Formats: sequence, C-alpha cells, structure tokens
Amino acid sequence: MRLLFVNPNTSADLTEQGARVARKAARPETEIVPATGRFGARYIATRAAAAIAGHAALDVFAREGRGADVVLLACFGDPGLFALREISPVPVVGMAEASCHLASTLGRKFSIVTGGHRWGPMLEEFVAAIGLTANLAAVRTVAPSGGEIAANPEAALDVLTQACAETVQRDGADVVILGGIGFAGMAERIAGKVPVPLIDNVVAAVQMAEAAAALKLAKPRSGSFSPTTPVRTTGLSAQLAALIEGENAK
Amino acid sequence: MRLLFVNPNTSADLTEQGARVARKAARPETEIVPATGRFGARYIATRAAAAIAGHAALDVFAREGRGADVVLLACFGDPGLFALREISPVPVVGMAEASCHLASTLGRKFSIVTGGHRWGPMLEEFVAAIGLTANLAAVRTVAPSGGEIAANPEAALDVLTQACAETVQRDGADVVILGGIGFAGMAERIAGKVPVPLIDNVVAAVQMAEAAAALKLAKPRSGSFSPTTPVRTTGLSAQLAALIEGENAK
Amino acid sequence: MRLLFVNPNTSADLTEQGARVARKAARPETEIVPATGRFGARYIATRAAAAIAGHAALDVFAREGRGADVVLLACFGDPGLFALREISPVPVVGMAEASCHLASTLGRKFSIVTGGHRWGPMLEEFVAAIGLTANLAAVRTVAPSGGEIAANPEAALDVLTQACAETVQRDGADVVILGGIGFAGMAERIAGKVPVPLIDNVVAAVQMAEAAAALKLAKPRSGSFSPTTPVRTTGLSAQLAALIEGENAK
Amino acid sequence: MRLLFVNPNTSADLTEQGARVARKAARPETEIVPATGRFGARYIATRAAAAIAGHAALDVFAREGRGADVVLLACFGDPGLFALREISPVPVVGMAEASCHLASTLGRKFSIVTGGHRWGPMLEEFVAAIGLTANLAAVRTVAPSGGEIAANPEAALDVLTQACAETVQRDGADVVILGGIGFAGMAERIAGKVPVPLIDNVVAAVQMAEAAAALKLAKPRSGSFSPTTPVRTTGLSAQLAALIEGENAK
Amino acid sequence: MRLLFVNPNTSADLTEQGARVARKAARPETEIVPATGRFGARYIATRAAAAIAGHAALDVFAREGRGADVVLLACFGDPGLFALREISPVPVVGMAEASCHLASTLGRKFSIVTGGHRWGPMLEEFVAAIGLTANLAAVRTVAPSGGEIAANPEAALDVLTQACAETVQRDGADVVILGGIGFAGMAERIAGKVPVPLIDNVVAAVQMAEAAAALKLAKPRSGSFSPTTPVRTTGLSAQLAALIEGENAK
Amino acid sequence: MRLLFVNPNTSADLTEQGARVARKAARPETEIVPATGRFGARYIATRAAAAIAGHAALDVFAREGRGADVVLLACFGDPGLFALREISPVPVVGMAEASCHLASTLGRKFSIVTGGHRWGPMLEEFVAAIGLTANLAAVRTVAPSGGEIAANPEAALDVLTQACAETVQRDGADVVILGGIGFAGMAERIAGKVPVPLIDNVVAAVQMAEAAAALKLAKPRSGSFSPTTPVRTTGLSAQLAALIEGENAK
Repeated sequence: MRLLFVNPNTSADLTEQGARVARKAARPETEIVPATGRFGARYIATRAAAAIAGHAALDVFAREGRGADVVLLACFGDPGLFALREISPVPVVGMAEASCHLASTLGRKFSIVTGGHRWGPMLEEFVAAIGLTANLAAVRTVAPSGGEIAANPEAALDVLTQACAETVQRDGADVVILGGIGFAGMAERIAGKVPVPLIDNVVAAVQMAEAAAALKLAKPRSGSFSPTTPVRTTGLSAQLAALIEGENAK
Repeated sequence: MRLLFVNPNTSADLTEQGARVARKAARPETEIVPATGRFGARYIATRAAAAIAGHAALDVFAREGRGADVVLLACFGDPGLFALREISPVPVVGMAEASCHLASTLGRKFSIVTGGHRWGPMLEEFVAAIGLTANLAAVRTVAPSGGEIAANPEAALDVLTQACAETVQRDGADVVILGGIGFAGMAERIAGKVPVPLIDNVVAAVQMAEAAAALKLAKPRSGSFSPTTPVRTTGLSAQLAALIEGENAK
Repeated sequence: MRLLFVNPNTSADLTEQGARVARKAARPETEIVPATGRFGARYIATRAAAAIAGHAALDVFAREGRGADVVLLACFGDPGLFALREISPVPVVGMAEASCHLASTLGRKFSIVTGGHRWGPMLEEFVAAIGLTANLAAVRTVAPSGGEIAANPEAALDVLTQACAETVQRDGADVVILGGIGFAGMAERIAGKVPVPLIDNVVAAVQMAEAAAALKLAKPRSGSFSPTTPVRTTGLSAQLAALIEGENAK
Repeated sequence: MRLLFVNPNTSADLTEQGARVARKAARPETEIVPATGRFGARYIATRAAAAIAGHAALDVFAREGRGADVVLLACFGDPGLFALREISPVPVVGMAEASCHLASTLGRKFSIVTGGHRWGPMLEEFVAAIGLTANLAAVRTVAPSGGEIAANPEAALDVLTQACAETVQRDGADVVILGGIGFAGMAERIAGKVPVPLIDNVVAAVQMAEAAAALKLAKPRSGSFSPTTPVRTTGLSAQLAALIEGENAK
Repeated sequence: MRLLFVNPNTSADLTEQGARVARKAARPETEIVPATGRFGARYIATRAAAAIAGHAALDVFAREGRGADVVLLACFGDPGLFALREISPVPVVGMAEASCHLASTLGRKFSIVTGGHRWGPMLEEFVAAIGLTANLAAVRTVAPSGGEIAANPEAALDVLTQACAETVQRDGADVVILGGIGFAGMAERIAGKVPVPLIDNVVAAVQMAEAAAALKLAKPRSGSFSPTTPVRTTGLSAQLAALIEGENAK
Repeated sequence: MRLLFVNPNTSADLTEQGARVARKAARPETEIVPATGRFGARYIATRAAAAIAGHAALDVFAREGRGADVVLLACFGDPGLFALREISPVPVVGMAEASCHLASTLGRKFSIVTGGHRWGPMLEEFVAAIGLTANLAAVRTVAPSGGEIAANPEAALDVLTQACAETVQRDGADVVILGGIGFAGMAERIAGKVPVPLIDNVVAAVQMAEAAAALKLAKPRSGSFSPTTPVRTTGLSAQLAALIEGENAK
C-alpha cells in the first residue's frame, strides 16, 4: 500500500523527519512516499503561509499523486484538506483532522498542544471547521514555533510537558495531541510525564490513513467530493492544470 | 493482538455473524475474541433494551476482558461506551462512534442508515453525545429491524439501497454508514449502487480498533476515564463486582 | 396521588433520607412510595456505576411501578431516565432534569454544586443530553462524595456554601442547584448564605412530579416514548422481562 | 397562595377566559388574581405589539403586584419576562417558558402549535432566548390568530388537531404545546385525537407557578435578577416610576 | 439623506452628545435628526428600563419617523430593534447590532466594553439574539454606568483603556467595541493605547446606516418584517396607535 | 479613497464587469482599482479552484496593494480572506462576508442564491466559518455557474427569480443575497419580483468597504491579525515573498 506523505511546508528536512516517524508507525506493507511543497513558507506559522500551502499541497499531489492508495497531508492544520479530498481519487487524511477524530474516541475532550502562538486561533477555527468544537478542551500554544522545536527538540521537552500537564488539569482534557510535523516522534519521549494519553500526530495520521485505505472505498460519484467539471485555468503547474482542466472530469 | 468483540445483544448467532466479518477485515495478527451479553434483549431496538445492554456490556467485559489489547463494543448505538472506557485498562472502540468518526474524515457530512424506526431519535442523540451533530446529514431508518434484516438479508437489500440513495440526494450526505451488527458484510453488496462511500460498521470499527491499539497508549491516570475509587456493590456478577469494588482501584 | 420514589443507588438508608424530605415537600394528598435499586453501587459516583443503575432503575420500576401515578428517579444524573420514560405508562421525572428545568425558569444561568469530582464531566454531558447547555453556568464539584456528605452533613456545610458562593461570583449563576440525593434537606440550611436562589433537588423534583401528574396526560401512542414492540429477553428479573417481552406491547 | 395572572393583551375578556381555566387547574388554596394590560394591542400578534406589551406587563405588575406570591405572565411569547423577573420580589413564571420547560421533561422534542403566522419566527427566537432550541421540534402556526380562535373555538378545532398531528408525524414531536391564552381549555378537547401528550399552556403555567412558589426561594441578592439601583424616570405610571426610582432599590 | 437618530434613553443631553458625534462621522449629505424617548429611565441600565425603552423607541418613531430614509436606534443593546424594523418602512440600524456586525468583519472575535455591570448578561443575550455568539470574545463591564461616564469622561478613560487591554490579552479579542451612547467620541481618545481596532459605536452605526440606506431596498412584502395587519389598541400615543391600527396595514 | 478590487477568478472581463457595478455604487471620492488573479481557474466553482484562489488573492495584493485604503475581495466565497486580512495593513472586506453581515442587519434570516451546485456546501461552510450559521435560512443554487450566467444574464433571470421566491416562501428568508461576481448588477433587475430585500453582493461589499475605511482604524498590533514574524519562503512571486519574508515584519 502506497501512502503519499505530503508536507506542504517547503522544508525537505521536516518532510524526512516526519516520514521517518511515519515509516516506523506504518505496517510493513505500507510504503511511505515523501513529497515536499514546492513553494511557500519554510515553516507554516501564519494564515498567509497556510493559504499558500493549500495551493502547494494540490500542486504536490498533482505532481506526485499518481499511484498512491492514500494521501496523508502532513501539516497540522491541514491546509487545502477539503480541496485535496475533492480532487484526489483516493482517500485523503489530514494530520490534524485524523488526530482530532482519533483523540475523540479515546475520551470526551481532547486538547492540542503546539508551537507558535498564532496557531491558537487558527486551530480553534480548524477544529470548528471539521465539526469537533464540542470535543475540544483547549488549544494551548508554546512560544517556540514547531520549526524551532524540530531543530532543537531537547530544549522544548520541558515546556511541552508542562503545557500538556496544564491542559489536563485546567481544561479537563482526557487526551492530548502534540500537533505539528516538527513534533513527530516526541510524544513517546514525554508521554510518561503526562497523566492522559498523548497522541503523536504523525503516528495517529498513519493509523487513520491505513484504516481509510483498508476500507477500499470508491471515489464518490455525486456530491461535494465527486470529480469536478473541467474548467480552464492559467498560471498553474502543468500537472495541476491538467487535473483541473480535464483529467479529473466527470 | 487480541480484540475482544463484545456484542451486548444476547444473540450468539449475531455475535458470530459479526465476528466473521471482523475476522475478514482484521489484519492477520489480530485475534477476534467474540463475547455475547448474558442478559437483556435478543436484539436491542428500544431505549430500555439499550439501557440494560450498558450493564450487560460491562458484565461481559468483566468476565472476558482479561488479556484483551482493545475492546470493540459491537452494537451500533454503543450502549455503555463511556462506562466501559472508564473501567477498561485498554482502549474501547464503539462501533457507532468509530464509524461516525471515520466517516467524518471521508467527507463533510455523513448519514446513518439503519433498521427499526425507534433507532432514529436514539442515534441522533448518540451522535450529539459524541459531539458530531455538525457532521450528521441525517439518520434514516427502514421498517424491518436489524435483527429481521440479519435473518433475511436478501429481502432488505433493495430497501436499504434506496434509503442510502435518498440520503445522498436529499440530505446531502458525502458518506453513508450502514449501522447495526446485523448489517455486517452487507455494505460491499450494495456499495456499487450507492454514489458515495458506504461504510460497513464492523469493518470500520475493526480498523479503528487496530488504529487505537497501535498507538500503545497508557491508561489515563487522571480525569474522567482514569481508574475509579473502589465502592461497595450488591447484586452484580462476581467479576463485575470485583472490578468495581477494587481490582480497578487507583 | 402515588409517587414512586426510585433510588437506583443500592443504599436503602439514602432512599429513606430522600423520601423523608420528599414527604415534607409534597402535598398532603401525595403518597411517597420509596424503592431502592437491587443491584449496583452503594453510592453512584462513576460512569460504570451509573450505567448499571440505568438497568437497576428499570428493574425497580418493573417490580414496584404498578399503581404509581408518577415516577421520580431520585439519583442526580438520572441514570436510565429516557429508558424509564419509554417503558412507563405514567410520567417519569428525573431529579436532575427536573431541577435543571425548574432552575432555568428562575434566572438565565444555573449552576450545579455536587460531591465527587468525577460527577463534573458526567453532569456536563447530562445537561447537554437534556438540551440545556446554553443555560448552564457551571458544574462545581467538591471533594467528598455525596455519600460521604450524607453520612456527615455538618462537616460539609462550609465547603458547599463556599462552592455555591464561588459559582455565583465567578460563573455568573443566577440560581444554584445542590445536586445529589445525599444533599436532600441541606439547601434550606445554607440558603441564607448564598446570594441567589438555592434549589434542593428532592424538593424541586417533587414539585415537578406533582406538576407533571396534574396534567393528566395520556401515554404517547406514537414516537420515541410510545409502548415498544415485544422482544425476547434473557437473564432479566421476571418482572422486567415481562415488561419488555409483552406487557408493554403496542 | 396568591397568583397574579397578568395578561398583557389589553382584552379583559381574554384575561377572564384564561383565569377561569387557571382556577380550574390550580390547587384549592391558590387564589388567581387576574390583571389586564392597560395599553397596547387588543391581541398581540406582531413584534411591535409584543414590545409594547413588555412595558404593559411591568406596568400591570407595578400596580397590582403587591401581595402576590408568584406572578404568571399569561401571554404565550412572554413579553417582558426577564424584566419582570428582575423587578419582582417573587417568582415570575412565563406561560411559554413554563410550557416549554415542562414539555421538555415529557419527551425529547416538543412542538408549539399556535394561531397567526407571524408568531412563527417570534416563537423560534423566544425558544432560542430561553436556551431550548435543541429541544424544539418545530413551531407550527395556523392562519387564524389566537384572538380569532378564542372568539370562535369550534371552528378551529379541526385545523388545530391537524397541525398537531402533522408536527408529530413530520417533525418528530414527542409532546405538543397549544400556545396562546386564547387556547386555554382547548387542549383537553382535542387531546384524544393527538397521539402524544398535548399541553394546555395555562394549565402548565399554573403548575409551574405553584411549583416555583412552593420552593419559597428568596429574591436574589446579587446578579442579573437582583434588585436594581434606583434611576430617575419620566412619563411612566406613578406605580412603575416608584418601582424603578426607588422602591426596588438595593 | 435623512437619518432619524432615536435615543430611547430619556435624556436629551445624551441624545445631543451622540448626535454631535454622528454628525461628525456622517457624510455631508446626511442629515442627522435627533429624537429622544418620551418615557422611561434617564439612562437605561436594567432589564426593566430596556423593556420600557422598546415601547419608547416605537413611540418616538411613530411621532418623528415620517420622512426618514433610515433609522438609527442609538442605545447600545438596541431595545425594540426587531419591532421597530417590523413597523418602519425604511431600514432600521441598531447601534449594538451594527457595531457587532461591522466588528465581525475586522477580525474573528470582538469584545464589548461598556459601563454598568448589569449590562454584562444583557449584552451576552443580545449578541446571542442577533446570532453572533460564535464571534464574541467577551463582554467586559466597568463599574460606572454609561451615564456616569458620559457626565465625566476624563475620570473613566483609564479604567476603560485597561478593560480594553485586558479583553485583548485574556479573551483574545481581535477588535473591541466601546458600547454605549455615553461613550460616543471616546474611542478615538484611547485608541492609541489599545493594540487592536477600537470601535466607536456611534461612528460605526452611522456608517452602517449610510450603507443600508445606499442599498435603496424596498420594504419586505412578505415575512416577519412585512407590514402588519391592523389591530385595535388602547392607551397608546395617537401616532403609535395610528401606525398599529392601520396606517401600517398590508 | 482608494479601493483595491481584487478578483481572484482569472477572468479579467469578470473583473471589469464587477468593477463597473462597484464604481456605480461607490461614493464619488472612492477610486475603484481593479486587479485580477494571475493564476488559477477562469471561474472558481470548486474547492480546488478556491484553494488556489486563496494564494492568488495574496499574490494580487502583494503586487498591487500598495497605496490602497481598503481591499475588497470580490469572489463570493472569499478565498483567502483571513490570510489577506492578516497580511494587509488596511481593512479587507470579503464580498460574501460583507453581504452576509449586512443582510443580517436587514432581517433575522438571510438566504444566498448562487450559480453552480458545488457552491452549496462550500458556502454553508463559509457561513459557519464567519460565525453566521444561526442567521442563515438557506443556500440555494441554480444549475448554471456564475460564469455562465455572467456570459448570458438574460437567460438566467427567471431561474434566479424563482430560486429567490422559493427561499423566501420555504426557508423563511427575510433577505436574499445574489452571490457571485457574475451577478453584479442583476439584483436591481429582478428585485421587483422578489418580496423581500434583494442584495447585490458587489454593491453591498462596496458599502461595507467604505464603512470600514471610514472608521480609520489602525492595523492591530497584537493578536491573530497583527503583522507576522518574517519567515523564509521559496517559489513565490517576488512581491509576495517580500511581504512574508520581511516587509510585513513586526
């Protein structure tokens, strides 16, 4: 089974770091195929960078999606998720969406801990957009960005552990998600110090991607995620233009 | 990996039927261990039967849960789900909860099609209880109960197909779940006639159970699903009494 | 008028304590008939105990419900409420449900103060299940359980008074409910120290039960609370089995 | 016990008609004291008339409220309810609010059937304002206004019965409220033809008023319904001016 | 363009103060026509005063509305807004409604800062009534009433600035509204000390009134805001009676 | 006053058509500066096209935004709205957001009528994202896309008129918005046949843009829309890269 691991951050080293954790989490028969965004911010930490990343994710998929059995959108916040799901013939799993839904089945309230304060409202809006506000205890952000934490994880372990502990105690979280591709692999290092289940977003998303692929569902033939009518475009990569102008036609 | 497949309906043949589909859906290394409720309705189709089944599910778990790596509560509507999750040291996956969350990641709106009109409001309330009302297109029920359909599936294929088609067209469902242990294995037979992904609830729940188990999370040590303080009981099975009176103590 | 006072906690002394307060609150022509759960926890303080109590409440009703004009489910949290309402030919009043609705007519926001921290999320979920989340200021729990407080009420008066005062000041509660059968009779002792109306849950529920009975409404003949179709059962008390297998048939 | 029955419609005959039903529904020791608005529409059927009625209800209370143990605001839609509750030293029961909360304890979803199409959105907004939207199946209006129906009830029985039956069947109502002082006494005439409990709004409100009075609660000393700071006024009736300028002072 | 500036507070000096700011904010071709309530509280700070003001606003409009192109209801909290909108042939802009909607387009979450603690819950309820709860960060009230602040604005600048700063920092407001006619003109004095946009409610409402008028929309001919059927009244001013009894007839 | 009129559809003729209507609606002193997206779909009618348009809108702004006093994002559905608002030093008005908020002040419930069925769920999600779900009566779509309608408006007048009439009658809309840049100028042609106010989205957005500009608000210095920390990018236009990498730095 071929899993396209799309990182719309334009940092190939983050992609590799995430893909390593994904490979370790995946079943032996799952092939993790990493792919990195070609344009946009090195590390997505603002609304503008996320908006650009929505386009970049589509572009990556158009270039490298052929042959994939499932797509994992590996930026926590899932820029372009619904658009990718519309255009892809195979299931698309958003790393944040997958983590939040899986967390919802492990307790009544989950919290997200992530790096970079600007992600706070962005993720609250994201959780609302996927319909899970009622299950969200809180989003708690720490000062260093996910990119900075990925570059020097040791320095961040304590502040992350404390944020996790606080959201359990003060917000009543039954489960905590460490959100951000830069956090891949860190949950297992601090899980022992957090009194509730701590979710590694890459690990959770790989599980959900394998689950979705195992259902062997057909592409919808009607509704909001069915193939789109061709429309003329301008200024896009040849591959993305091809997808939108016809390849993906009803 | 050992998956306890708890059917709180007191019909062992339904358990077997569901377990067969579960085995087919599971990875080779997953052992499906079926277990059937010892008291209550043969087929759960009312609020009273569901309330009794909540107790029956706990009782089954107390008797047969030892050694399980994950528990699958295999009655769509998930009677006793949060109680079981509280008392179990390993993850508990509700068949309806798992199906609804997985469906939510395959589109924006999912519908449930099931047998027996009384399940309509009960499932709407269930979806609200797990925080997913915003993602629910509709619950559509057909007249024969899940038990009757399980006994004679051929007769029901057309009416189910039509209910699925209607909820796509009129309610805007992007995904449909066939809900009920009695429907195990039926989705693949009619999926071709339904224009959006059609979820088999047993298959979906097995995938989610394997995903939850793969996370290797520790039992919460604080909060609403942590081990409970022992309390004296009366009139329960010895095994359930033991769990509540002490074995499960902090 | 005959009011069946069902305590699904399996402590007959709590039943008596509650029934005494109920008798004092009731009109002269109301007969309070106490009944105690036959199986389950001595004092319900966990999700598992509450799930079992849902069954126990049905069992009590099946054994002792004949001749009642109204049923009062006297455990704050109302385990089995909707199931009992489905199966009973006469109105069923849940102690928490009644208190919350009555409180909602005395201000805009009500709070619940109760004993035992695990009741916090359970009661928030209950309030959501009865559709009153928008009217809830907060649930505040104190450390001793309702059972412990009932055993030694003097020791708890101060901590309860303080919790009430805090929820008025910090959560903006216009009304406060002291929730738990173990608190029966305590509200009048501390009401003078709480700056907003303080509701005694047994007193409120008796008033609502008398109000419901006075409406002389017929059992619904259609919908989610109409009589159920008979279904075979196993392992239940003879009386409960009779109710579910036929006596309660359409 | 003295119950001030405030009809903010300026039709004394409607007041009498409602008070007659109230007397029949009340306990023997409850004295029903009718009072009619002094200014505004004969029959309230618009937003403008309802806004004026909020003032008129305060004015009636200021003139005739002295000595009351409880106030019943007997116009379905409850104009001025929260203001009256603020200013009154004794509990204030709104006829619509009381009916909706009592109905909520008799099933999961209630509907309102009333006369005059303009009440449709007004009552949906009212139900939202009291926090009960989640429990509302539907508001169904028939063409003749409540005033017209009160003048010739025979002519309306069939159309009301049909509206009740429709909201049960199509909207899934477990309970129906006949809303409007003009409908007082009509529910018992058609209840036999409606397959779920049918609530007479005057009867329900009297029960809730007696329940509220029986709690013997003190006026709040803090918060949104505590006595207000005196403020100078102009152009009001002497009695209302007195209440607002000082009598009601902290 | 003629803008009727309706102040339902019965303080003509407040009307003048507000109208001065309105004139400064308006386009040259906009004529601001001030009008003051004839009965009710000098300064509205309670539910009772607001209920009376709903009637007073209608009365002012009936007397002075002829010839207006748009109506601005200039009391933050907008008493009688929907009723006025029903009865007026031209658009009606509520000062709070306009400010909240305009603020919603300048960020994701807005806060309201106002004078007088009793306005806290009243404004939360108002924001819910106009459907904007999801966009509200918080309502923060300071002790002096709007009337007191208008009388001595210098004394209040610091406490208001601090309340604004707090709601930005603690409640996550992207925008803040200074609410109350008594605050007209104050936002520009402290805006420099508040790190997010600070809205002057009179200025915002004038902009929204000019926008509404510019759309040149016809009065609705159907639905909840179309002209009402005449109904007999009693005890109203001749002009308001005329509006309700016939002039405004379909 | 300089208004940047950003059309992220890549059809310059649509931009011109919209800008003509904008000029007619604007005050004399408002200069409308049209700008068209450089890449993406000719006409946005899918999730993928909208995701790309979010990037395109940022790109247009980076190239042509200098000197603007306000930005109007003139694609109904507002792709990239929050990102543009984050990055722009002046107010950004979304055409759909502005229309929905203005419509909310003209009644209680608004509907959107637009072209292309795929916009149905996309706009429901958009309305939820801006917090206005409670005010939405319905989104009604007609078969021809906005692009097709713009190319041949005569052919569409009847079908649009009928969709408007239906949403008034069946969905209870108090106001209707014709949504889509392709509909600019059409509302006035059919308004006479629609019994409630009909909003032209370009006209409404111009009014709201002028209102926002008139407030002369400073760029937020804190929170989710304050200037962002510079971050390295790749593959963007020089102007957009400059904005994100530093020009827009705190």
